[in-house]
Amino acid sequence: MPNRASVLSTDLQIRTEERAMPVPGPRDVLVAIRSVGVCGSDIHYFQEGRIGSFVVEAPLVLGHESSGVIVDRGVDARRHDVGTRVALEPGVPCGSCAECRVGRYNLCPDVSFFATPPVDGTFTEHVTIHEDFAHPVPDSISDDAAALLEPLSVGVWACAKAKVGLGTTVLVTGAGPVGVMAALVARASGASRVVLADINPHRLAKAGDLGFETIDSRTAAFDDAPTADVLLECSGSPAAIDAGIRAVKRAGTVVLVGMAAHGKVPLPVDVIQGRELWVTGTFRYANTYPTAIALAAGGAINLDELVSKVFSLDEVEQALTHHLDNPAAMKVMVHVSE
Amino acid sequence: MPNRASVLSTDLQIRTEERAMPVPGPRDVLVAIRSVGVCGSDIHYFQEGRIGSFVVEAPLVLGHESSGVIVDRGVDARRHDVGTRVALEPGVPCGSCAECRVGRYNLCPDVSFFATPPVDGTFTEHVTIHEDFAHPVPDSISDDAAALLEPLSVGVWACAKAKVGLGTTVLVTGAGPVGVMAALVARASGASRVVLADINPHRLAKAGDLGFETIDSRTAAFDDAPTADVLLECSGSPAAIDAGIRAVKRAGTVVLVGMAAHGKVPLPVDVIQGRELWVTGTFRYANTYPTAIALAAGGAINLDELVSKVFSLDEVEQALTHHLDNPAAMKVMVHVSE
Amino acid sequence: MPNRASVLSTDLQIRTEERAMPVPGPRDVLVAIRSVGVCGSDIHYFQEGRIGSFVVEAPLVLGHESSGVIVDRGVDARRHDVGTRVALEPGVPCGSCAECRVGRYNLCPDVSFFATPPVDGTFTEHVTIHEDFAHPVPDSISDDAAALLEPLSVGVWACAKAKVGLGTTVLVTGAGPVGVMAALVARASGASRVVLADINPHRLAKAGDLGFETIDSRTAAFDDAPTADVLLECSGSPAAIDAGIRAVKRAGTVVLVGMAAHGKVPLPVDVIQGRELWVTGTFRYANTYPTAIALAAGGAINLDELVSKVFSLDEVEQALTHHLDNPAAMKVMVHVSE
Amino acid sequence: MPNRASVLSTDLQIRTEERAMPVPGPRDVLVAIRSVGVCGSDIHYFQEGRIGSFVVEAPLVLGHESSGVIVDRGVDARRHDVGTRVALEPGVPCGSCAECRVGRYNLCPDVSFFATPPVDGTFTEHVTIHEDFAHPVPDSISDDAAALLEPLSVGVWACAKAKVGLGTTVLVTGAGPVGVMAALVARASGASRVVLADINPHRLAKAGDLGFETIDSRTAAFDDAPTADVLLECSGSPAAIDAGIRAVKRAGTVVLVGMAAHGKVPLPVDVIQGRELWVTGTFRYANTYPTAIALAAGGAINLDELVSKVFSLDEVEQALTHHLDNPAAMKVMVHVSE
Repeated sequence: MPNRASVLSTDLQIRTEERAMPVPGPRDVLVAIRSVGVCGSDIHYFQEGRIGSFVVEAPLVLGHESSGVIVDRGVDARRHDVGTRVALEPGVPCGSCAECRVGRYNLCPDVSFFATPPVDGTFTEHVTIHEDFAHPVPDSISDDAAALLEPLSVGVWACAKAKVGLGTTVLVTGAGPVGVMAALVARASGASRVVLADINPHRLAKAGDLGFETIDSRTAAFDDAPTADVLLECSGSPAAIDAGIRAVKRAGTVVLVGMAAHGKVPLPVDVIQGRELWVTGTFRYANTYPTAIALAAGGAINLDELVSKVFSLDEVEQALTHHLDNPAAMKVMVHVSE
Repeated sequence: MPNRASVLSTDLQIRTEERAMPVPGPRDVLVAIRSVGVCGSDIHYFQEGRIGSFVVEAPLVLGHESSGVIVDRGVDARRHDVGTRVALEPGVPCGSCAECRVGRYNLCPDVSFFATPPVDGTFTEHVTIHEDFAHPVPDSISDDAAALLEPLSVGVWACAKAKVGLGTTVLVTGAGPVGVMAALVARASGASRVVLADINPHRLAKAGDLGFETIDSRTAAFDDAPTADVLLECSGSPAAIDAGIRAVKRAGTVVLVGMAAHGKVPLPVDVIQGRELWVTGTFRYANTYPTAIALAAGGAINLDELVSKVFSLDEVEQALTHHLDNPAAMKVMVHVSE
Repeated sequence: MPNRASVLSTDLQIRTEERAMPVPGPRDVLVAIRSVGVCGSDIHYFQEGRIGSFVVEAPLVLGHESSGVIVDRGVDARRHDVGTRVALEPGVPCGSCAECRVGRYNLCPDVSFFATPPVDGTFTEHVTIHEDFAHPVPDSISDDAAALLEPLSVGVWACAKAKVGLGTTVLVTGAGPVGVMAALVARASGASRVVLADINPHRLAKAGDLGFETIDSRTAAFDDAPTADVLLECSGSPAAIDAGIRAVKRAGTVVLVGMAAHGKVPLPVDVIQGRELWVTGTFRYANTYPTAIALAAGGAINLDELVSKVFSLDEVEQALTHHLDNPAAMKVMVHVSE
Repeated sequence: MPNRASVLSTDLQIRTEERAMPVPGPRDVLVAIRSVGVCGSDIHYFQEGRIGSFVVEAPLVLGHESSGVIVDRGVDARRHDVGTRVALEPGVPCGSCAECRVGRYNLCPDVSFFATPPVDGTFTEHVTIHEDFAHPVPDSISDDAAALLEPLSVGVWACAKAKVGLGTTVLVTGAGPVGVMAALVARASGASRVVLADINPHRLAKAGDLGFETIDSRTAAFDDAPTADVLLECSGSPAAIDAGIRAVKRAGTVVLVGMAAHGKVPLPVDVIQGRELWVTGTFRYANTYPTAIALAAGGAINLDELVSKVFSLDEVEQALTHHLDNPAAMKVMVHVSE
């Protein structure tokens, strides 16, 4: 049986191809993909052919925010039954390096991550994945929501790094999907105030619809005095990073989630020192899926309302370019099967 | 002007007396008390004349869960205006011992705490308190709710000790006011499951009304396998402590909030070791009022619905005995003035 | 080629037998054992045939504190060369359960641990082990010291749990090998005061020789006022646990390392609450070998001076009973080969 | 009785003047100064008349690394006897702001800190200070060493922020007094490797004399692969900050201790994100004196060997300029009295 896949060529064209059906390894499951979210990184590979040192040097299947159904299992894969609906955690670490042994598997140097060259992603009918990274989801989580547990995990991880909790005041710079996810997680964590800042009025409107306080960074400054315990920086903009850090209170925490276009960014070191701020960045996430599933299953966070538009597997190119004419778009999904 | 007070005599009789109006020290405010909650410790002093090494050896005013209005200020007290409505944090630490300097002011050996012999409490028309421990409350917090920020702080502190957060599963043993407060805080902190256990069906019914999963410890055991990340033990019962600890998962946390009748309690050390559990206890709280105010002001926790019955200053004895015939009672309040 | 092993029968007799040479799995190494330390648990299995729920129901090879030389490798084991001298970390976890994924692999429910029924140990000429748990050691660490990195890891883990560091004051109850190891680690961690307490004068003398302050618990009490930031309880004695906890200062930490004869032990809960102590226990250790190797290799801790007596593989029974007539004995070693 | 003081005028001239003897407040002690260390900030004020927003707008007494003897006490100051030899912690916080209440008193916005305009420092015969910040020292700590507990505290704080402990590998950039202090503290904390990097060969030679591994940043790069768990950046040089951060391993910690000439410094954000580093800065220190005293008193750190040259109170100008012709100088002291 062939396995249809949407493939990005090295000259950055997207075509649907028939490929061989993947065969699960001993601890793998074979998953029939249902829904895949479009991530900014997919768009970036499509437009630029690279992200930093990762270069599209061979045909690549994009897509890494995915859900599906288990249709077969490897000989030693006994955790899930065939027929189980699962969310796919896209990065499978080696399990035995020093980072893995201490529980920081997102920093595993040998991780295999969907849609990161040369590893193919999930804009395809079937993939195999180690059973530990196929997370069963309850009926209360839709296929789309299951796929969106991946960007939700980014928000969970950012909030975990910042120890957002009861009474925390949080500033989120960048109100795109990642910023909104981070803000939703912060609110679910008991944050007493969550403010989203952006320069895109459509995104600010959406943030307002979701009940968040917003700041239009084009016209308004943050509060005069630093008022945030935590900055979750999701824009990658040097200006937002600088202004955001200055808005953080003494002993507060700054988590750099958004990737800057250039590796080096001028930071206000005098503020970091004078207020003894803690600044860190996130690289993917680890051990977040159980929490993400609980958030979505219990209704604390409604992921379906973030879906702006749905395309088919043959429309991946439209999915990757939808945002160009739709500045209000939040999440775009590709439905591979139902 | 006289200052009426409800006084517990050394022979454990309660009478309303007229006392001299207190005079605020330089950094004190004078507060006209409005609402005071009855705490189990008040009842205990009334019934037994002592709690552990604290003995009623002179007439004592009980009451320490209190709100009121600032009516005068000491010469150097400039933080709040006269007329400000405040919740009173009942323990004022020395500010300069080793514990205070590291931020653990609840462990200050020289703390002055309302209604702990020989310090008088707040079942009286007026008290003085250091301005730092009179916390202004917004209009959205009623006088009763402002008083109940004190037991809420106990819950905030317990959850903070246990690092209850997003996705945490919490077992609360003891569904009295403290247990319910702890459960409410856990839920507001993003806990994915909060279970209240008790042997009192009235309390379990109230817990159910508040939306919590409940376990009747008289007839049902906890889950077969350990399922809680955190135990908040609010009963003081040795049986509940033992069963509760056994319900906690590997690397989980146990916070002993309820006071046991006897100082020494047999604990399952083999379970603590084999699962590497962390066990601690709470002694009052520190730096919790800002969070408690945010929780109550923002509507995350509705304290008013915990009020079962209201008495006047002349009815303190009835307030202290109300629970005897009202096993369903949750919080009993004394309204000193309006 | 046969593989000689010292075997404990179910009727608790020890005999040297010839067994088949073990064959390394794909990621295993085959290790020729050189030195093995005798642990209290080995003695306990020999005397009682069980430890808690672990029962000797089939012939068992004891021994789990071991060093040796790699003599063969599995097909996928490429981390170490044949000829590498290694210390063996005796517990190999599954690598994929929830505990392993968060870095707490010592709590893996599927761990395979040397000399824990039904897994054979290292009183034998050859064993196989996953290459990740064979830690290369430099020449500055002797074969005996390499074997003793295992109990040293227990001390490293205890100090890590207690966050022993610069300026910490530490009380260690129980001056046997584990207590002494813990004390040595505490001193190397910058503890400003380390006191060892025991009732065995030989052990106290040895502790004194190692430069530690000592307390004879038969005749002397701890200081009048609580003076320890940390209690490392290595005796398992209920009396020592109780007195030790009472010696810990506010907000201090208690680590229960020694195993009590009975699972339940009366603890002073009033002290734990009133001082907000943190009490935990240790179950083996995780990720300690790099630190243990650094401590021994750099000379911060001299493990060889803890060796009291050496026996051969045919003298395992003498090794297991040596302590009976030698109350001053610290570590007893079995040299399998040179 | 007059009180001689070395005063910096607003036109940056230094003269010894006679001032009125200070009178201790109720909780203050009056201290006869013995030894004062010269800090880079003293030199900076003398040369530039300002540090950032702190400007010498009125005559100022410099000096804040000080020891002395208590010669009088305020009416409520009962912690120390007259005649007690003390080290002076130079910053006295308000004790009641939010930062003080949580134990971060170094971030108190109302701190009074010696030799920070407009607060006079300790290049004078007598000063008053709140008794809590006059720390008694044992005879094993000399007057100079007692004064140098202040910069040692900077090192203690930096290591505490970075959680330097057993087995930590530490890179210190900048081998001046602060870098050396930090390195000494790291070594005393059980760090398994401490490397000092600088461009000043005299300082590198001194660091080598103290037993540290050194890197000459003019000619040598750090290791090819990141090898430090912790970077303690004590130079303030943007080049050192950048290279230093790149030398830190995944999940490592960067503490910015040295002050950069300009507030904003380009940082490699891609490295911070990709390795999930934690970056913070230090602003003075809190609760470090007990640890610093223990380190110096127990012999773990010998502060006296860092003293390069001693001047008298009338030679403060020479003390402040000594480094100009003495690039090998480490700490320069002013002896006010013996």
